[in-house]
Amino acid sequence: MPSALILIADGTEEMEFTITYDTLVRAGVTCTSAFVPTPADASKLEATSPPFARGSRGINILPDTYFSPQALTADKFDAIVIPGGAKGAETLSESSPVQHLVREFYNSKKVVGMICAGSLVALTSSLPSQPITSHPSVKSKLDSIFQYKEDPVVVSNNLVTSRGPGTAFPFALTLVELLCGTKKRDEVRGPMVFPPGTPW
Amino acid sequence: MPSALILIADGTEEMEFTITYDTLVRAGVTCTSAFVPTPADASKLEATSPPFARGSRGINILPDTYFSPQALTADKFDAIVIPGGAKGAETLSESSPVQHLVREFYNSKKVVGMICAGSLVALTSSLPSQPITSHPSVKSKLDSIFQYKEDPVVVSNNLVTSRGPGTAFPFALTLVELLCGTKKRDEVRGPMVFPPGTPW
Repeated sequence: MPSALILIADGTEEMEFTITYDTLVRAGVTCTSAFVPTPADASKLEATSPPFARGSRGINILPDTYFSPQALTADKFDAIVIPGGAKGAETLSESSPVQHLVREFYNSKKVVGMICAGSLVALTSSLPSQPITSHPSVKSKLDSIFQYKEDPVVVSNNLVTSRGPGTAFPFALTLVELLCGTKKRDEVRGPMVFPPGTPW
Repeated sequence: MPSALILIADGTEEMEFTITYDTLVRAGVTCTSAFVPTPADASKLEATSPPFARGSRGINILPDTYFSPQALTADKFDAIVIPGGAKGAETLSESSPVQHLVREFYNSKKVVGMICAGSLVALTSSLPSQPITSHPSVKSKLDSIFQYKEDPVVVSNNLVTSRGPGTAFPFALTLVELLCGTKKRDEVRGPMVFPPGTPW
């Protein structure tokens, strides 16, 4: 059964996190969410039990575990996912252990998914220049380095990028397809009851 | 500023909950999520701090408050929302205080939103027979009593019903339109970056 590591921080866009996690679970992917604190919060964490991530629109989510570079290594998962949300993506993109881990996933040809402002992690992790997309609000930080596209989902090598909450379903279903195949994508999509004419 | 009460239980579909809550917050609606325990769990609750709802696909969400029929009355909110998820909808639909509150919202012409299996609450609350939709899996429980439709979102009087995670965005945007107007719906929809051709 494939497995995915999904990072989360204070300020993560909770729809992007939830749609990806839930859709992958529906496909049989074992998901682990890991909380990445801001540097300022890291020192306080032992006092917080259980930890929770404050989503960008105020939904508080209990992550499955803390992010630990020792425990959560690329050999243990088939994919890593970086959701957006401006403040959450800032924390994730500026974390040196996250950057290191993303490079490890990318270099070992595992699926690397980034959505919305989460695509900034491709920049801060120094992934090779290639086709990429993101939320329009961070396009200007990416388009001089990467080949910037405006497609809802861009698959380039093992890097999958997407634009925002409105593209989170096709993003998640693309991850399902890459991890579990086209048939599973169709199986998962059906019971979600998308309106007729939905372009994914 | 309009306000909405969004119910949540163990087994609530976390995408339907999160998409609705987050989209309403983006529109400036003050959202309060309230946890409804199963009867079996209700006696244990004081030992649980903070409470959290175990979503249908394993995402744990910290609700804003406990459901309390004394504190959460229809005069305090402009809308009530019942998400789906089979087990969560079972708990919500079988709760007599929830049924009472939903009737109170409906009779005072406040917006009553139900999605997926959450539409069962229209049945158990004995709302008047009218056009309705739901997840296909619970259609057979509703279609002899209500005028069952298969549209993504059905608006009938002040009752708004919808089908599943795949219709959660148009459901939430319809609630925004009813609570905040068409202009706000457009304002909220834009930055979500739906793919071209998305039919809502």
